[in-house]
Amino acid sequence: MVWHKSCNRENDVVVTNRWHRISLRAACMRDSRFDILFEPVQIGPVTARNRFFQVPHCNGMGWTQPRALAELRKVKAEGGWAVVCTEEVEIHPSSDCSPFNEGRLWGDEDIPALQLMADAVHEHGSLAGIELLHKGMSSANFTTREIPLGPSHRPVTSVAPMQARAMTKADIRELRRWHRDAALRARRAGFDVIYVYASHDLSLPFHFLQKRKNDRIDEYGGSLENRVRLLRELIEDTRDTVGDSCAVAVRLGVDELLGPDGVSCEAEGRDVVGLLAELPDLWDVNVSSWANDSATSRFKKEGYQEEYVSFVKQLTTRPVVGVGRFTSPDAMVSQVRRGILDFIGAARPSIADPFLPRKIEEGRIDEIRECIGCNICVSSDHSNSNLRCTQNPTMGEEWRRGWHPETMPEKADEGSVLVVGAGPCGLEAALAAARRGYEVTLVEAGSELGGRVALESGLPGLREWARVRDWRVTQLQRMSNVDIFRGSKLAAADVLEFGAAHIALATGSFWRRDGIGRANGTPVQGFDRHNVRTPDELMRGHQPQGAVVVFDDDHYYMGGLLAERCALAGNRVVLVTPAALVSAWTSDTLEALAILRRLLHLGVEVHTYSNVRQLSERAATVECQLTGKLREIACSTLVSVTARLPADGLALELVDKRQELAAAGNRSLCTIGDAFGPGTIAAAVYQGHRFARELGIAADKLGGFKRELPILRQELQ
Amino acid sequence: MVWHKSCNRENDVVVTNRWHRISLRAACMRDSRFDILFEPVQIGPVTARNRFFQVPHCNGMGWTQPRALAELRKVKAEGGWAVVCTEEVEIHPSSDCSPFNEGRLWGDEDIPALQLMADAVHEHGSLAGIELLHKGMSSANFTTREIPLGPSHRPVTSVAPMQARAMTKADIRELRRWHRDAALRARRAGFDVIYVYASHDLSLPFHFLQKRKNDRIDEYGGSLENRVRLLRELIEDTRDTVGDSCAVAVRLGVDELLGPDGVSCEAEGRDVVGLLAELPDLWDVNVSSWANDSATSRFKKEGYQEEYVSFVKQLTTRPVVGVGRFTSPDAMVSQVRRGILDFIGAARPSIADPFLPRKIEEGRIDEIRECIGCNICVSSDHSNSNLRCTQNPTMGEEWRRGWHPETMPEKADEGSVLVVGAGPCGLEAALAAARRGYEVTLVEAGSELGGRVALESGLPGLREWARVRDWRVTQLQRMSNVDIFRGSKLAAADVLEFGAAHIALATGSFWRRDGIGRANGTPVQGFDRHNVRTPDELMRGHQPQGAVVVFDDDHYYMGGLLAERCALAGNRVVLVTPAALVSAWTSDTLEALAILRRLLHLGVEVHTYSNVRQLSERAATVECQLTGKLREIACSTLVSVTARLPADGLALELVDKRQELAAAGNRSLCTIGDAFGPGTIAAAVYQGHRFARELGIAADKLGGFKRELPILRQELQ
Repeated sequence: MVWHKSCNRENDVVVTNRWHRISLRAACMRDSRFDILFEPVQIGPVTARNRFFQVPHCNGMGWTQPRALAELRKVKAEGGWAVVCTEEVEIHPSSDCSPFNEGRLWGDEDIPALQLMADAVHEHGSLAGIELLHKGMSSANFTTREIPLGPSHRPVTSVAPMQARAMTKADIRELRRWHRDAALRARRAGFDVIYVYASHDLSLPFHFLQKRKNDRIDEYGGSLENRVRLLRELIEDTRDTVGDSCAVAVRLGVDELLGPDGVSCEAEGRDVVGLLAELPDLWDVNVSSWANDSATSRFKKEGYQEEYVSFVKQLTTRPVVGVGRFTSPDAMVSQVRRGILDFIGAARPSIADPFLPRKIEEGRIDEIRECIGCNICVSSDHSNSNLRCTQNPTMGEEWRRGWHPETMPEKADEGSVLVVGAGPCGLEAALAAARRGYEVTLVEAGSELGGRVALESGLPGLREWARVRDWRVTQLQRMSNVDIFRGSKLAAADVLEFGAAHIALATGSFWRRDGIGRANGTPVQGFDRHNVRTPDELMRGHQPQGAVVVFDDDHYYMGGLLAERCALAGNRVVLVTPAALVSAWTSDTLEALAILRRLLHLGVEVHTYSNVRQLSERAATVECQLTGKLREIACSTLVSVTARLPADGLALELVDKRQELAAAGNRSLCTIGDAFGPGTIAAAVYQGHRFARELGIAADKLGGFKRELPILRQELQ
Repeated sequence: MVWHKSCNRENDVVVTNRWHRISLRAACMRDSRFDILFEPVQIGPVTARNRFFQVPHCNGMGWTQPRALAELRKVKAEGGWAVVCTEEVEIHPSSDCSPFNEGRLWGDEDIPALQLMADAVHEHGSLAGIELLHKGMSSANFTTREIPLGPSHRPVTSVAPMQARAMTKADIRELRRWHRDAALRARRAGFDVIYVYASHDLSLPFHFLQKRKNDRIDEYGGSLENRVRLLRELIEDTRDTVGDSCAVAVRLGVDELLGPDGVSCEAEGRDVVGLLAELPDLWDVNVSSWANDSATSRFKKEGYQEEYVSFVKQLTTRPVVGVGRFTSPDAMVSQVRRGILDFIGAARPSIADPFLPRKIEEGRIDEIRECIGCNICVSSDHSNSNLRCTQNPTMGEEWRRGWHPETMPEKADEGSVLVVGAGPCGLEAALAAARRGYEVTLVEAGSELGGRVALESGLPGLREWARVRDWRVTQLQRMSNVDIFRGSKLAAADVLEFGAAHIALATGSFWRRDGIGRANGTPVQGFDRHNVRTPDELMRGHQPQGAVVVFDDDHYYMGGLLAERCALAGNRVVLVTPAALVSAWTSDTLEALAILRRLLHLGVEVHTYSNVRQLSERAATVECQLTGKLREIACSTLVSVTARLPADGLALELVDKRQELAAAGNRSLCTIGDAFGPGTIAAAVYQGHRFARELGIAADKLGGFKRELPILRQELQ
């Protein structure tokens, strides 16, 4: 083999020590055009030190992991976010978020946990915000078993078999008391900004606003003035209770994207802001539902909410915060200069890079790890697990593993690191190891860096996913302790010859061609034919002709995306899936409905609960999993999207050569990422990072992670 | 109005005191034909005091609520179950059950929580069992982020975008070590019966057994002897490690109901038992998956697993436990006498009546609260909330509310209780109040007791749901302090005249006719026509003629059941639902696939993502929620299953009469059950029970419930 060395920029030197990463690059001053982002902004009685505002966002951990959450939010404050908020925080047992883990402030017993977070945020000079939530008819109250509350008798908004009951006036008085009590407790916990939450179709005052849920005939129903009454009262109550020392924010969904059937920025969304214009200290405005607010990059681009929220500042003198997956400082400045927003709100960009503000402040713009808009973060909330991020592998691991997004421990031993494969896992492994001070060699068999990210970012709508590669390549290229080689396919002998102390095999995976996946445990008859194509082939440029069957037994985005691509290319496309839903797991990234809508719009025919049992030259035989009925679907090509196999040939070769490796000076050999177990890009990046974190640490010293356990004896708390 | 007094049996007297319910009924001896159920049975080194065996079952609480679980299991032991088991308990971070809460035994730090339960079970002389779980490729490991493990490279069994990796020999050695460590820890925690779990398509040794998941070419793949090797090793390891003092049980799924594609009792399921016949101390056998094992009464009747498991005792001398939703002592005796089972296993029947064994033992068979097979218990697990039961409102509330299924606190004040409405809520309210010693009058407007339960149990497959009514009526009829009146519709004046100290209005709900539900916030055009029918009308006997559209915007069982009933009656039926799935919420009761299968089998046409926008004399106009396209569906009747309204007329009348009520001696007036907020039957029963528990207790003394919170400072634990 030949070692093709890529260019490395030699002018930048990065030195790491155990806890603080010190950039020795030519001292960078911030571009003065960004100064406006660092102006302090008054919010009622408190002052934010700059315009960066981490709006409330869920995280999967909620009340069950208070120490982890405190550390997570603390890192945001350290990274320069002037306001750092909680997720939604339940104020009363009549609104529990089960089965999900969100914040909880039902009583005094919940104050200490929340105080951990407020204190942590204050440590870095930021303001701590809390989003008080009564979820109204959006909660089935599985945990507390209380009957949900709403403006009128209506089923809860999920499919759960419970209804909300129409609140009486006494109920409304009680609700106001709960909200006041929660505001007082929030202040005792140390929060500076206290939210009244009316957005995302997830909160009681929003349900009162919605004509379709409110058919009351008293002063809380009917006219908009009446339907806005509860929201007004909650704002007033919060001001009266804590407004002398805390800012009162309102989070309002100004448009539900439902046209005349919902709240709209051209009608009642605008009118609500007009009616309450000066009442809160801050307006936090967005589009509802959550799927619209947190649209993925596949469907919406940076700044996509401007058209809906730009009216707000015309109606109020109060500061306005909005979101739009902002990662570009120029776009941020433009929002402020043009009078759209006062604060650059962010949830996802603050997850991908908790240090985004500080990097702008310090003129390190090309170090910003930009959100790719994949919503893997959202899936953490849906799976009740620690928040994660494709771009930022330390997210959610701050407390339990002690990982910090910007600092790495100094290397634990001497010796070089060889990383084979420059996909998302290999790139991260190389970068993270280099940041620890190891001498790193990254070797890629192909001509291009990025692996699956390079391929997948070419699919319709996924362009921004290339940021996973681009950020890492940019950082790697300025490290003096990293060599990158492309077009260099290594055999075992090459690895032995290289003689690295530590070796990571990040050689990725490839899509199976035999039909084996979830529905089929053995190869599908006829899948050895030439007319079976894999996602790899299509992504590398193959364009099927004629009718195409996309067989999706993978259930994340790939099947739907290839159906979309083929339909865009003019193929007649039938999507066949054994699942109940198209791209079923994208429900957890809030995309499933949008994907199905797009496919139907493109004329894709869909067969759910269906398995491919056989393929001939001209047709696929498809079995309905419910009835057993078979049907023939004519096609010239079948695209098989079922499962992947690790590209672990090199790993298997080396497994037998442990002694020779040891003789060549090797101390550790790991297979990581998709080559170990194919999964998400987020999982690959995480594994690459973890490899580097654990380098040189003996296996028995790897303590796993810290856990938060329930108290067993009440008297202890 | 006329007061129609029902018969009360006066011969039985029940006296309650604060903690112990003492039955003064004529001393009942156990029928000697049940003696066999109370024989002790040896299980390896331990002895079960009788044949009642609470098999492992999930509960929604898991490791997050150790104190609540200890109390829950303790009540089972007190009720006479000779063996009381945990739920599945994760043995290692490479298998986490997120997003669900199950048991956790990853390390020594988990021992104290489990010890709470073992100690609690021992207090009542029962054996404590623990089901050690490695979930293998059934877990995506969202929490721990470890790559899932399996026999071969395969996607995880859910739709999550992760794959299991093929375990190496070293991995298998590690797994065996983890399992041994877990067994040792389980013994330290005090458990007597330690499970090796291979069932439900939810455990690693089961995945090794399955041909469709195991394509290994080493000694763990290929022949059945090879595929069973891991299971054999885990049993041997467990015996070697703790077998001297603990019984080693195997839970095996002997049939997956997949014919030749899966494990089958006629082939490999039988052969596995044959191969390992004498190796474990106990065989716990069932059908897989969970949906098959815990089939609802709508689909399977008592003893339905016999045909699959009856072979087991022919192949082993070890005791065998099996399940089949057994609630009838005669059926249990028959299982033992005929040599099918040695232990009567139960999950759901032990939830519905934790005292089932003791009631048989004491000759109180007619006091057994029989499971109705609705699987609302399963939904608790899916919603990560406290276990609940339609029949047993105290389930899951033992610790946090201090509720015991068999004892009630003595009444807190003097004075009579009037319960209006004898549906599930009213019946339970009356019974529970009477058990506290109150003088209770239960008044029903209709001629029949049972309310919605009487109606719904007439629907196809729901016959057993009538047990909710029948058990309560049976118990009520033997209380001397209860009067029951039927055919007595009360007006406000009647209630005032009655002059009860406490009044509960449990007047139920009725189905809306206007189309308002989740998809439609305002009445649907044309729903004021005579050809709209409600579930109430159909359940009361109306039989539509001709083509029927069932519009299901409710999403639990009702829409699917009425479609089924109409199809069985010969109607052409189209089911239209805005949801993505038919009877969508029945996914949480494990029924969704079976329901859809049945409907398709009956020729019902299904339109999902579809809303009814208009109804004419002959057709419904249906809009696709994804594309906006309209279509006409011909029908002579539309059955509207959207939402319910509380039947709260009496409540609203009385709200204005507080002063008159007080003058008449009334101290409390509550609306409860569906009349308060329409929900499940389980919710109605729970509310009725809670009403009675809280009777006479001042509002400020109602402490809600105790909670289990995370430790904030590590040093405290």
